[in-house]
Amino acid sequence: MTVQEQQGAWIDTDAVVIGAGPVGLWQVFECGLLGLSCHVVDVLGEAGGQCVELYADKPIYDIPGLPVTTGRELAARLCQQIKPFAPRWHLGEQVTGLTSIADGRFELLTSAGAALRCRSVFIAAGVGAFLPRRLPLEGLQPHEGRSVFHHVLPEAEAAGREVVVAGGDDTALRQVLSLASSATPPSRLSLLHRRDKFDPADPALATALARLRAEGRLQVVAGQPVDLVVEEGELHGLRIAPPEGPEFTLPLQRLAVCLGLSPRLGPIADWGLAMARKQLVVDTARFETSVPGIHAVGDVVTYPGKRKLLLSGFHEATLAAFAAAERRRGAPVALEYTTSSRHLQQRLGVLPL
Amino acid sequence: MTVQEQQGAWIDTDAVVIGAGPVGLWQVFECGLLGLSCHVVDVLGEAGGQCVELYADKPIYDIPGLPVTTGRELAARLCQQIKPFAPRWHLGEQVTGLTSIADGRFELLTSAGAALRCRSVFIAAGVGAFLPRRLPLEGLQPHEGRSVFHHVLPEAEAAGREVVVAGGDDTALRQVLSLASSATPPSRLSLLHRRDKFDPADPALATALARLRAEGRLQVVAGQPVDLVVEEGELHGLRIAPPEGPEFTLPLQRLAVCLGLSPRLGPIADWGLAMARKQLVVDTARFETSVPGIHAVGDVVTYPGKRKLLLSGFHEATLAAFAAAERRRGAPVALEYTTSSRHLQQRLGVLPL
Repeated sequence: MTVQEQQGAWIDTDAVVIGAGPVGLWQVFECGLLGLSCHVVDVLGEAGGQCVELYADKPIYDIPGLPVTTGRELAARLCQQIKPFAPRWHLGEQVTGLTSIADGRFELLTSAGAALRCRSVFIAAGVGAFLPRRLPLEGLQPHEGRSVFHHVLPEAEAAGREVVVAGGDDTALRQVLSLASSATPPSRLSLLHRRDKFDPADPALATALARLRAEGRLQVVAGQPVDLVVEEGELHGLRIAPPEGPEFTLPLQRLAVCLGLSPRLGPIADWGLAMARKQLVVDTARFETSVPGIHAVGDVVTYPGKRKLLLSGFHEATLAAFAAAERRRGAPVALEYTTSSRHLQQRLGVLPL
Repeated sequence: MTVQEQQGAWIDTDAVVIGAGPVGLWQVFECGLLGLSCHVVDVLGEAGGQCVELYADKPIYDIPGLPVTTGRELAARLCQQIKPFAPRWHLGEQVTGLTSIADGRFELLTSAGAALRCRSVFIAAGVGAFLPRRLPLEGLQPHEGRSVFHHVLPEAEAAGREVVVAGGDDTALRQVLSLASSATPPSRLSLLHRRDKFDPADPALATALARLRAEGRLQVVAGQPVDLVVEEGELHGLRIAPPEGPEFTLPLQRLAVCLGLSPRLGPIADWGLAMARKQLVVDTARFETSVPGIHAVGDVVTYPGKRKLLLSGFHEATLAAFAAAERRRGAPVALEYTTSSRHLQQRLGVLPL
């Protein structure tokens, strides 16, 4: 029994949108026009998804009516556009469970403990949640959160200890610099990478790295971790296979795994929805998965002719919203135009209620 | 044999887009990204279609990324966006004929005599071409262009003659005011409307109308035209059925029919394409009609779930463009992103060739 069940703190809403990328945001807009309230869950800490994570300042030329925009600008425009519909945000959270209940509704739990009950679910998860890439070593899991940390190692955990940072990209280098310049630095700091060569996008990182090494505050260890060294249940080191020569043990008390973020569909893949080549299979009228009431839109779906373009996601989200509105009403929902409908303009907040 | 065939003046192009509304403009964009050149034909004299004709200054709230725009602004943005692809325009023209030729291509003729030969046709005709609404009177046709004019009566035709303007909307009132204030006004000017009541959107028109009547420069005739009065092949008057009382004859030498524009699918309806409820039937992968190579997108099409929204038209045009590109290449065409593809950025003119 979850905390929510004990407390009876289920939140009722018309719809839950999983994914706050541009297509998830547009899903909120079209739901709002049709009078459906939404909660939005995204593993990232801000709205915009891949668009902000990967293309924040890169130009986008193929949004109709915007000759040029950027990922960040587009996300900001969409956030402004959905403001009238005041979605409830669950950012930095993942949906950890989804259950069909008897009356055709769904119950969802998020990693932060929110418990949402709704009639329609929209999966707008793109290529999946961006999760920290893990070291492919058996037996690591029991040490996670104790001696092994992903993406970010808290300073307090590193203070005065033997610390290994595994990784070679800018995020790993920034983690090393941050720990080294801490008021309570590690007693020994090692950077583990498959070879002693770094090519940071930010050249200042290369300079800072060289200085730390020259000052003896950082050792670089070249090699691949192949096994854990565990004594009495505690992680004490990694067995390393160097590019040349025999394996050796790299002792450690704390390990920071900074191998970047990798998109994963995550728990969604376990919900029993029909899939084809890692995509959710949907129809092109309702953009519904094999489970009625669970829609999917954007890069996560496949159908004949599918192209992974934002403008297609906008169309898919729109038809999915109509399908959900008809499911709720149990009757056809007529199309109204924002240009002429007083009703829609009231929902948009441009006409008084 | 047409003039073009005699002259051998066929113009070869990859694609012809019928309709220069927002969806037709987006069709040009997506074709351009995929390297397909386009000619665009529209019966209206400027790009923008219904959006400019009917919603020029009205707000539109449901274009993703544009929290609010207008018909005119959206058309202008799209025209700017397609500039790199330099479509060839045929504005103020209609496609009068379409023929399949032996090699899988099509030949199209326009009302202005252009002769276009292409591999793909995109019908983005919306609710049809906006054509002047006609008086439902038998025997009118032989007088059109001689004594009967639709939409606009040239001043030279009206000068010193008995003129009747049929209609009651703002366009009809503007026609009346324009003729009355001409340097060479009609000898007598009548406004024929089903009743003596006008409700112009522009209140200045009501004031101007009242002044003309007070000055005796305009008579308003209430009633429905029921027949023509023709003598020796010339139109001399209309038989009018007033709201009350017996029919009478309204003499005239020139008739201006200002009953507004009415959308008509026009010749497209005669091309043998599968239709359902006056819409072209298309699939949702290629947005192709029952004739391979002829695509249809936007408000003119139907498929399960279809909603007549601009953002759906943008999606449809995009998939139709990919289908056309694959037809031309005879092989799959991979998706590239404008954000990252040097190739696409060169076509967009933002990177040098």
